[in-house]
Amino acid sequence: MEKIAIQLPDHSYPIYIGSHLMTTELLKTSLAGSQAMIVTNETVAAFYLQACLDSLPSVQCNTVILPDGEAYKTLVQWQMILESLLAKRHHRDTTLISLGGGVIGDMTGFAASCYQRGVDFIQVPTTLLAQVDASIGGKTAVNHPLGKNMIGAFHQPKAVIIDLATLATLSAEEFACGMAEVIKAAVIADAEFFTFLEEKCEQIQAKDPTMLTEMVKRACLIKANIVQQDEREQNVRALLNFGHTFGHALEKVMGYGEIKHGQAVAIGMMLATRLAEQAKMVSLPIVQRLQVLLQRYHLPTTIPAGVSAQALLDAMQHDKKIVKQQLRLVLPTCIGNAVLTANYPDEVLNEILIG
Amino acid sequence: MEKIAIQLPDHSYPIYIGSHLMTTELLKTSLAGSQAMIVTNETVAAFYLQACLDSLPSVQCNTVILPDGEAYKTLVQWQMILESLLAKRHHRDTTLISLGGGVIGDMTGFAASCYQRGVDFIQVPTTLLAQVDASIGGKTAVNHPLGKNMIGAFHQPKAVIIDLATLATLSAEEFACGMAEVIKAAVIADAEFFTFLEEKCEQIQAKDPTMLTEMVKRACLIKANIVQQDEREQNVRALLNFGHTFGHALEKVMGYGEIKHGQAVAIGMMLATRLAEQAKMVSLPIVQRLQVLLQRYHLPTTIPAGVSAQALLDAMQHDKKIVKQQLRLVLPTCIGNAVLTANYPDEVLNEILIG
Repeated sequence: MEKIAIQLPDHSYPIYIGSHLMTTELLKTSLAGSQAMIVTNETVAAFYLQACLDSLPSVQCNTVILPDGEAYKTLVQWQMILESLLAKRHHRDTTLISLGGGVIGDMTGFAASCYQRGVDFIQVPTTLLAQVDASIGGKTAVNHPLGKNMIGAFHQPKAVIIDLATLATLSAEEFACGMAEVIKAAVIADAEFFTFLEEKCEQIQAKDPTMLTEMVKRACLIKANIVQQDEREQNVRALLNFGHTFGHALEKVMGYGEIKHGQAVAIGMMLATRLAEQAKMVSLPIVQRLQVLLQRYHLPTTIPAGVSAQALLDAMQHDKKIVKQQLRLVLPTCIGNAVLTANYPDEVLNEILIG
Repeated sequence: MEKIAIQLPDHSYPIYIGSHLMTTELLKTSLAGSQAMIVTNETVAAFYLQACLDSLPSVQCNTVILPDGEAYKTLVQWQMILESLLAKRHHRDTTLISLGGGVIGDMTGFAASCYQRGVDFIQVPTTLLAQVDASIGGKTAVNHPLGKNMIGAFHQPKAVIIDLATLATLSAEEFACGMAEVIKAAVIADAEFFTFLEEKCEQIQAKDPTMLTEMVKRACLIKANIVQQDEREQNVRALLNFGHTFGHALEKVMGYGEIKHGQAVAIGMMLATRLAEQAKMVSLPIVQRLQVLLQRYHLPTTIPAGVSAQALLDAMQHDKKIVKQQLRLVLPTCIGNAVLTANYPDEVLNEILIG
C-alpha cells in the first residue's frame, strides 16, 4: 500500500493507494464517531456496498443509493442525502462515506459540507477519474442547468481510500475518461510522466497492477502538490482546469450525460492546445503528440458533429474563471507546463471552435 | 460611528455601528468587484432598497426580493438566490448584500458560501436581532421541516454595516425579539451589562440613540469576543446557544413562523435557567431576576398553552449539540456565566417541560 499525505493549513489527510483496501480496517479507523452514511449509486452498490458495510461493524451505518450518472448530479439528489441524514438522526459527529465516482464524491462532499454546517466525509473513489482527480482536494459541487459545478463548496475529506481492485469492474469507456485527467496532470506539470504514459500505454490499458499503482500515485502526487500550494484556487490550482472550460461548455451544450466528463476534457485539452498553437505559444508537434496520446487511450479529440460554436461561446461566458468580465483559459506552453491567461486573440478562439 | 474588528485566522472584517450608514460610501468601498446582488424581503425593500441601490453607482447591481418571515428560510428561497446569480451571470468576484433581518442574512450568507464554491457577502442587518447577533460570526443556514438551521455553512461576511436608523421602522414585537439575544449575551458573559439593561430599560425602549449605540456595541463585542475564540463552535461558542435548544424545539413543534425566534429564545432561556435551578446550579433569585427583565422587555417566559412536552423532547433529539447520543444544554451558573453540559438529571428536564 502506498500512502500520500496532503498537508493543508487546517486539514491534513492521507490518501491510501492499494488493492482490496475496502475490506481492511482503514475505513473503520478513519471514522471519528459511531455513525456513518454510505452514499453510492445503483451500479457501484451492486459490486461494493456489502463489502463496505461488512468493514464497519458496530457502527450505525445507513445508506443512500442514488441513480447513476452525471445527469443526477443535482440539488435534488443532494437534498435526498441531507434528508436521509435528518431522517436517520445523524449527529454532528457522523461521517459520510462516498462510494463511487466523481459524481457521487462531489455530491456527498457537498452534502457533508452543509449538513449541520459541516461534518466529516471519506472518499472511497471507484473510478479511475475519481481516484486520480475528483476525490482529492476538497472541491465539491452539483450542476445546474445554467452551469456545471456552479453550486458547491470547498470541503476537504478526512481520508481518501483508493482501492485499485475496483478498476476491474470499470468499463473501457470509463477507464479512458480517467486517463483524460491523468494525461491532463502530465501536460500541466510533468513531462517525464507524459513520456511514461506514452511508453507504458499497453501495460496501463491491460491494467497491469504495478503500472496502475505507479500511474495513480504519480497523478495523485501532482494533484496533491498543486492543492497544497493553493487550496482555494486563488492561483496555481486553476491550472488543473486545463481542458475544462471548453469541456464544461461542451457538456452543458450537449446536455449533462450526453458526453462523458473525461471525453469532454479530452476534446477541451485539444482545443486549448490548438488555440495555444495558433497564438504561437506552443509548436505544432506538441499538438500532434497530445492528439496521438489521447487517441491511443481511446479518447475523442474533436468537437462532435452538430455542436454550435456560438452555443459553446455562450456557455463559456458562465465559466467560474471569468474575472472582471474576462474569460481566462489554461493554455500549455510545452509538455509539462501551462499558464492561466486572458492574453489570446478573441478571433483565434472563434476560429478554433468553428474548427 | 463605532467600529469593531473581528479577527479570525483567515478572515478579519469590520463591524460598523452608527446611524444612516446605508447612505454613506461604506457599502461601495466594501465591494471587491463590479457586481453586486442585494437580497432582501418585501417589507424591508419598501423602506431601504432604493437607498441601498443609490449608494452603489457604477456597479452591476441586481436584486432578489423574497417573502418576509422565518417560514421562508428554506432551500427553495435559497435556490432562488442562486438562480438569480446564474441568470444575471454573476462571476466569482461578485458580492452578495444581505439587506434585512436574520432570515435574509442566514439565507444570503449560505447562498454566498455555495455560489461558485464561495463568493463575498456583506451583512446590512435591519433588525435589532440581526444587528446584535445573527449578522456576526459567519453562521449561515436554512431550516428543514426536520430541524432548524440543519443545512448551512460557516461563511464569514466581508463587512457588517449596522445602520441603527433602521430600528425606527421596526415593530415593537421585533424589537423585543432582538432584546432576547441582547439579554442572552449579558447572561452568558457580562453581569455588568445585565445591570445596564435593567437600569436603562426605559431609555432603551424609547430608542434613545446614545443608549442604543452603547447597547448594540456591547452586545456585538461579546459576540465578537466569543467568535474570535472559537469560530467553528468547537467549544465556547456553543454558549451563544443559551436558550436556543429549547427555543428551536418550540419553533419546530409550533411551526416556523408561529412563534418568533426571539420569543422562543426568551422562553428557552427561562426553561434552561429553571432547569439549572432545579439541578442546584443557580439560586431561585436569579431565575426571578431573569424573568422580570424578560417581562420588562415584553418577552414571554412560559411555554404557550397546548404545546406537548413529549413533542418538545422529541424535537430536541435532532439538536446539533448532540454528541455521542447525549443532549448537551447551555445552563447558567450565575448572571454573567454559563456552561455547556450533559450533566443534569433527565427527570428534571421532563419536569421543566411539563411545567
